[in-house]
Amino acid sequence: MLEQLDLTKSMPRDEYKERMEVLEPELSRLQRTCKSEHIPVIIVFEGFSAAGKGEQISRLIHALDPRGFYVNSIGPESEEEQMHPFLWRFWTKLPSDTQIAVFDRSWYRKVVVDHVDKKSDDSHLATYYNEINSFERQLTDGGTVIIKFFLCIDQKEQKKRFKKLLSSDASAWRVSENALEQNKKFDTYKQMYDDMLEQTDTACAPWTIVEAMDRRFATVKIYTAVIEALKTQVAIRQAAAEGNVATQAEPTPASEYDDEVLRTSSLNKVDLSLSLSKEEYRSELKKLQNRIEELHGEIYKARIPVILGFEGWDAGGKGGAIKRLTEKMDPRGYIVHPTSAANDIEKVHHYLWRFWNSVPKDGHIAIFDRTWYGRVMVERIEGFCTTDDWHRAYQEINEMEKQFVEHGAIVIKFWMQIDKDEQERRFNERMENPEKQWKITDEDWRNREKWDAYEKAVDEMLVRTSTSSAPWIIVEGNCKYYARIKVLRTVVDAMEERLKKAKK
Amino acid sequence: MLEQLDLTKSMPRDEYKERMEVLEPELSRLQRTCKSEHIPVIIVFEGFSAAGKGEQISRLIHALDPRGFYVNSIGPESEEEQMHPFLWRFWTKLPSDTQIAVFDRSWYRKVVVDHVDKKSDDSHLATYYNEINSFERQLTDGGTVIIKFFLCIDQKEQKKRFKKLLSSDASAWRVSENALEQNKKFDTYKQMYDDMLEQTDTACAPWTIVEAMDRRFATVKIYTAVIEALKTQVAIRQAAAEGNVATQAEPTPASEYDDEVLRTSSLNKVDLSLSLSKEEYRSELKKLQNRIEELHGEIYKARIPVILGFEGWDAGGKGGAIKRLTEKMDPRGYIVHPTSAANDIEKVHHYLWRFWNSVPKDGHIAIFDRTWYGRVMVERIEGFCTTDDWHRAYQEINEMEKQFVEHGAIVIKFWMQIDKDEQERRFNERMENPEKQWKITDEDWRNREKWDAYEKAVDEMLVRTSTSSAPWIIVEGNCKYYARIKVLRTVVDAMEERLKKAKK
Repeated sequence: MLEQLDLTKSMPRDEYKERMEVLEPELSRLQRTCKSEHIPVIIVFEGFSAAGKGEQISRLIHALDPRGFYVNSIGPESEEEQMHPFLWRFWTKLPSDTQIAVFDRSWYRKVVVDHVDKKSDDSHLATYYNEINSFERQLTDGGTVIIKFFLCIDQKEQKKRFKKLLSSDASAWRVSENALEQNKKFDTYKQMYDDMLEQTDTACAPWTIVEAMDRRFATVKIYTAVIEALKTQVAIRQAAAEGNVATQAEPTPASEYDDEVLRTSSLNKVDLSLSLSKEEYRSELKKLQNRIEELHGEIYKARIPVILGFEGWDAGGKGGAIKRLTEKMDPRGYIVHPTSAANDIEKVHHYLWRFWNSVPKDGHIAIFDRTWYGRVMVERIEGFCTTDDWHRAYQEINEMEKQFVEHGAIVIKFWMQIDKDEQERRFNERMENPEKQWKITDEDWRNREKWDAYEKAVDEMLVRTSTSSAPWIIVEGNCKYYARIKVLRTVVDAMEERLKKAKK
Repeated sequence: MLEQLDLTKSMPRDEYKERMEVLEPELSRLQRTCKSEHIPVIIVFEGFSAAGKGEQISRLIHALDPRGFYVNSIGPESEEEQMHPFLWRFWTKLPSDTQIAVFDRSWYRKVVVDHVDKKSDDSHLATYYNEINSFERQLTDGGTVIIKFFLCIDQKEQKKRFKKLLSSDASAWRVSENALEQNKKFDTYKQMYDDMLEQTDTACAPWTIVEAMDRRFATVKIYTAVIEALKTQVAIRQAAAEGNVATQAEPTPASEYDDEVLRTSSLNKVDLSLSLSKEEYRSELKKLQNRIEELHGEIYKARIPVILGFEGWDAGGKGGAIKRLTEKMDPRGYIVHPTSAANDIEKVHHYLWRFWNSVPKDGHIAIFDRTWYGRVMVERIEGFCTTDDWHRAYQEINEMEKQFVEHGAIVIKFWMQIDKDEQERRFNERMENPEKQWKITDEDWRNREKWDAYEKAVDEMLVRTSTSSAPWIIVEGNCKYYARIKVLRTVVDAMEERLKKAKK
């Protein structure tokens, strides 16, 4: 995509001034509209060294209300960042739905700068591109506008700019050894950039290539592109609000999950009679907890992150299992994230944002008491998201978990299964026992009425998201002893297996 | 995705009969509706050997009007098919917009059966998955419904079925050595299938996994899933027709191609003064044509397919260049495809279908006089497709060309550039010369009035689709001699370079 450019384009000062007098107030106005329409905006600046990214960003934000934007400068990965999945540092920096996030370099750093500098591994390049494309698709599907600029200059101009910077002590520090190296290897970089642009110029997040030899020309081009992209999104939102573009015809849910007989419930085949005596339980529990204590240390030393998700029926025994699991763990090495309805901050971000924020770093364990699967259960059933949203979510969730696994994490999801009678028994017990009354609410009873709808949703979820790298473990939960031991044993087995691999 | 299945599900005969009495007429009715709504339908059957694909297909088509469907049985690739890009055999088998195409095995064969049998290369697996996902996305974006079934049985059942088949001479031939091998390596296959299902269970073309131990149960599940998928698409079409779901809010075209000053036209920098004298031309032409004749043979022997696309202004010299290019070529080794407005058959298929049908086989040369780029030029400008359609097309076209290159093809696209004055001169010459009058129509004059709109579209096209593997070559065309020589030389250079690589 860098071949067919006319880098000689420029703009005289008078015309620049005249245009900016129109563009700046228009951008200001649009920022306000995007805020009131709840449109999150991401503006990415990539390009050759000395192409003027910094200056163009300064010029762009000149028109923006500083309370509504922030600039992220993306350098090499910190130690902390290296201990998380590749895109974690960007998920945690995403704008809320009233913000504009500007990226001075971005996730694309990894596939070019870091790559040429041999900071990233060749064989992973294809994986990174896949992850980037999923990332951008997930965000734009969720309503974010992504505007990507690539600033292009030629080798001669770059050399000239470096020379000028080096000639003054005030600016010489801005030219790194790496940058000078880039000028020498200009063609290598250009080829890498070209490959990057090709692989990631998608319909949902296209690149705008900016001829950046003349700074005025570049500024006007950038302003104009941002304005048009925002205008387009505002028009789409407003049309949707006016019902011109309905939120798509809601497709009827796939029948297999609707038809009582056709539905092949994974839950129906669960043998809920499985049980353990109190004695067996006590002796097993002790052994397994001691083993987990040892393994926790080994996992820490081997820098393996562990992600454990717990889902299940109300009163299914999630809390009890988590308690037994963590009882002997070093509290500095794990964290339990209870997931309830999204709070105000979470509501104004992508639904996966809060989970990305809780990804454990290498060697640590994160336990989720309820998880991102809320999207395809409660949000689906209560209509908190559109059919399109939860349809898309299976792929989105699989992609996210795959990225965790690609980074080296152990990912296990537990479904705590009990039957309807057992739930009623436990509910009543909670009602009657004053010490347990806090655990039961009217909502639990209301949810119970939707048992069948939930069962359908859970069935579909288990099939669509049981992946080889991040399996669902169905835990037979009518006997709490049995269930807790199964959870602990599963975790022990997975850790032992991974450690064995790591030692190879 | 194969883990959480309850394979024990079955259906008593009475219930089966009762249900089929409803399902069969409903499917018949829906087939007629899909036909009248112009919805192309693809139904894919994959699964373990002896899972009953053949029988399920028979049962499914029982309800269908035989004039409206056809079944493709996909075996190993023929020699002819091996000499084309991987997905060619499927593009050429796509249904028109009044047809249902059933696939007994499909493009998924390549990633499992062929793969385990070592007929396909390990390192290409990721590429195949990418190509499959692009393929299905392109089709569903274009309005096709894709319904994918995976029929699942367990190892024991498979063995039992093989045994039964082998016990009778009438059916023993149906059990291949490979199939028996599959039973032994059942877990390997299962893992491969699981990976396949995960990588390709997308929102646009999700898998329906069918528990196929009980044939009646499987049939009812398949019927129901097909009916629901078709109903959904019909509802979407009808809602769109009624204007409930508008064909999306048309986004304003990106400004950079709208703004005279900002637009950095690749075409403006073209030096149209470049020329050759008649003498130079004659001597160069002779040399290059002789060289192409030699290279054509070498290309044939090395089994390298060549795809050359010609686009350009009316009277830009496409025809003349193609004539000089092919003059000395062996006519058995090349074909020129003139591309005009889509004919009736082409109109009822995906817009890329006709070009896939013309992909040359290995060692052959296909020359396109006008190409698939019509989508982002004439169709864009004349409003023959939606904004969404041509926005998507850049990525779709890049993906297609990349697949050609992945297969080993040389892909070059020529843009024949002349200026507006030169065009007028040539138009007038055609008007005045009785022998050339056939070459000029009123439409040419009308198109000329849209010069500026075309120039914008061409600029955007050149930037977005100049990829490293399939570059655009802009040919300075005011001097016909110069232009023809540049085309020939580009082809010679590209062939020589590729042959050099092939010899390494």
